[in-house]
Amino acid sequence: MGADLAITNALALTMRDGRLGIVENATIAVENDEISSVGPADEFDGNPARTIDGSGRVVLPGLVNVHAHTGLTLLRGGAQDVPEIEWMNRALGPLSEAMTPDDEIAGARLGVLEALRSGVTTVGEYAADVADLVDAVYDPMGVRVVAAETINAVDDAAADLGPDEPYPLDDEQGWAGLERNEDLFETYADHERVSCLYGPQALDMVPPELLETIRDRAIEHDRGIHMHVAQGEREHRQIQARYGANETTVSVLDDLGIVSERLLAAHLHNATAAEREHLADAGVRMAANPSSIAAIDGITPPIDEYREYGGVAGIGTDQAPGPGGHDFLRELRTTALLAKTKRTDPTAFPAWEALRVATIEGAKTLGIDDRVGSLEVGKRADLVVLDLDHPSTAPVVSKPLQTAVPNLIYGANAGLVDTVVVDGEVVLENGAVTTVDEEGVLESANERAAAVFDRAGDAWRAADSELVGRVEDGWL
Amino acid sequence: MGADLAITNALALTMRDGRLGIVENATIAVENDEISSVGPADEFDGNPARTIDGSGRVVLPGLVNVHAHTGLTLLRGGAQDVPEIEWMNRALGPLSEAMTPDDEIAGARLGVLEALRSGVTTVGEYAADVADLVDAVYDPMGVRVVAAETINAVDDAAADLGPDEPYPLDDEQGWAGLERNEDLFETYADHERVSCLYGPQALDMVPPELLETIRDRAIEHDRGIHMHVAQGEREHRQIQARYGANETTVSVLDDLGIVSERLLAAHLHNATAAEREHLADAGVRMAANPSSIAAIDGITPPIDEYREYGGVAGIGTDQAPGPGGHDFLRELRTTALLAKTKRTDPTAFPAWEALRVATIEGAKTLGIDDRVGSLEVGKRADLVVLDLDHPSTAPVVSKPLQTAVPNLIYGANAGLVDTVVVDGEVVLENGAVTTVDEEGVLESANERAAAVFDRAGDAWRAADSELVGRVEDGWL
Repeated sequence: MGADLAITNALALTMRDGRLGIVENATIAVENDEISSVGPADEFDGNPARTIDGSGRVVLPGLVNVHAHTGLTLLRGGAQDVPEIEWMNRALGPLSEAMTPDDEIAGARLGVLEALRSGVTTVGEYAADVADLVDAVYDPMGVRVVAAETINAVDDAAADLGPDEPYPLDDEQGWAGLERNEDLFETYADHERVSCLYGPQALDMVPPELLETIRDRAIEHDRGIHMHVAQGEREHRQIQARYGANETTVSVLDDLGIVSERLLAAHLHNATAAEREHLADAGVRMAANPSSIAAIDGITPPIDEYREYGGVAGIGTDQAPGPGGHDFLRELRTTALLAKTKRTDPTAFPAWEALRVATIEGAKTLGIDDRVGSLEVGKRADLVVLDLDHPSTAPVVSKPLQTAVPNLIYGANAGLVDTVVVDGEVVLENGAVTTVDEEGVLESANERAAAVFDRAGDAWRAADSELVGRVEDGWL
Repeated sequence: MGADLAITNALALTMRDGRLGIVENATIAVENDEISSVGPADEFDGNPARTIDGSGRVVLPGLVNVHAHTGLTLLRGGAQDVPEIEWMNRALGPLSEAMTPDDEIAGARLGVLEALRSGVTTVGEYAADVADLVDAVYDPMGVRVVAAETINAVDDAAADLGPDEPYPLDDEQGWAGLERNEDLFETYADHERVSCLYGPQALDMVPPELLETIRDRAIEHDRGIHMHVAQGEREHRQIQARYGANETTVSVLDDLGIVSERLLAAHLHNATAAEREHLADAGVRMAANPSSIAAIDGITPPIDEYREYGGVAGIGTDQAPGPGGHDFLRELRTTALLAKTKRTDPTAFPAWEALRVATIEGAKTLGIDDRVGSLEVGKRADLVVLDLDHPSTAPVVSKPLQTAVPNLIYGANAGLVDTVVVDGEVVLENGAVTTVDEEGVLESANERAAAVFDRAGDAWRAADSELVGRVEDGWL
């Protein structure tokens, strides 16, 4: 039988049977872009067109980053170490307003490059005009994407309002977003590597009638909804101002019939524990963004708690001006250490849990676990080969315990990824991305960032976040 | 004037004047192993024997890792995700007991390699027979070391005792440790890259008379003392059992006259805030080990608090089976994110503070800031050149703020280090260490680790930590 590709003699973490599914000395074969065989190397008798020697290496299902705004990667470093209340409007805002659509594409290309180099094969992308990113970035780079079109009805005038004054909502703007979202579903209906979700940005940013329409269409067409939920005090005050003092984001979403298995809720740190338990019970999936929320809010997202309620959850890197970037292996380590310190419990979010959440649980979170997330025959061939024989992860032993498991989580970063296969295609080989000119991506990002920061300079200084003073004092 | 080496046209973070000391387009020259010039490139008129083009790169003082037991790097992954109470005796213990002195050297070589690749030029090493590591690892690799000889009088029988039974102390063993420590001072008295400290391991592990002798000798010879202080509940219960129910580590150290500017105290998380303030006031320097203490105890070390009291503090990576390793750039990011979540404050431990703590403050912590820690004329030439034009740190802009500062802390890892100079010698060039065979270090570590874990297997299983069950369940 002629497989197209086989990775031989590797340590495979298949994620089968609800565990890690460890297979030592395994061969994984790919045929017609699907996984055609997984098992001990000595049981494999195929004659693959191409073989990658996996000796001393680890093979995982491709990693799944469930929530990212990669376009903002162009603004990396632009809004760090700033008070939460200033982050959005006074630090990041003046910079992001200076970006053109092409700047966003350049940023996304850099962000997806960074993610891919760290073993990410699927990104839950969230952007306005997300189709532009799909066409210009994800499709040519060969990376799987679950795209949500941002639907946001907040009028530009809102930036000048206090937190307790309801933002004016522009219905037309909201409905136009939904139309783009419908086009998105249509455009990529038959694309093997592109899935779509509705993307109402947040409850405070979309009129309720629009949300009810999204709900009805989601049910009618069997589609999911990706939404920021309970992401902070500002949102909560908006909800109270608009829906009443006793309401919360979760209570209103409940009333609107949005709380269901269709919902993928990002963040949730500003919900109550009881609300999170309710959401988990209702089958709502959670996107946790540990580095981002730690950097922007000083908060550890409750992903461990949500999983204890039985909720399905994945990890995202959100946007670069916050966590610093999209190295997903680094993000797993961060998730584990933040969970441990939050609970004063060194056993919280162990390495094996991180590996499952990064793969099969992430795929469930994005609703694509029927196709990816584990190394199983019949699934699409998304996989990652890592070389742990590196100063940050060696030595690796297999007895009496597999140190590859903790060393992957506590030691690895993007530099260790050897090979990435997405949908049967090798998109990263010997550590270099084959589907894009890496140097060109960096060059374009540098040029465009210089121009964006330059254009934004006056507005950035006028917004007068604490960072402006830091520059004057010689700290930045 | 003929400098030996010049790094030209770089963004220099000199750490001068109590700030970052940012110099754009700087040239840093080295002559006779000292920094001979730092300033704008167009003011430099030397004729260096060798030039490194720093265009688009950042130059920092060499990073200072103030506390590490690098020998344990051989056991990386051996004791992760385990309850704190099991970590030392039931998880790590059976593995470390199976190590030979040569295993420890192989581990240290790997650990120092990892540290060096991440820009570390000085390590505060802490080990028994530390001279063996200095001779076999630090000296040939050309890395600066501040070595403490472990003085520990705890009898082997202590492992079988409950936490409230005072460990039997073997005076002879303790005094032998001090003799080794004295030899250490003598051996390296004239070594430019080796400094020494007394290393009484912890108050519960050394008899008080021995500590008093160490105190007297430290005063007599103007030497420092590196000691683990208030590192957990087990220590506290030992102190109570030995010194009385109202005593704490800090109160007894006070009575013994150990609390002074001579003391470098590792950890401190189990002291009270009032005790920490007292120590800071007394000039005690703190070694914080964020990833290690997060991974082993689920605790964020109080380095930010200690610095607010005006205390001098640095960062260490402790040992690999805990934090995962010695990538110091990663450790800076971890320190910042853990501090932010601990205080629910995104402005806690900002990037610029991390950079100072990693360099000049680390040098103060180890008592070597007269020689290293900043880029200033007359200091020994320890410096690091990083290339931030990388998918995890680009783009970098200099206006309206220097994004190199946050991107270094939130985006960088060891893979970005181009050049490392220690004491005027280039020890890492184009990302590769020149003073050791990297492949050989990995090979030796792998071979020796396989043998150690194999020898330890039965004892490890018999100790029956939770990890044994995890292996049986297919998680490790």
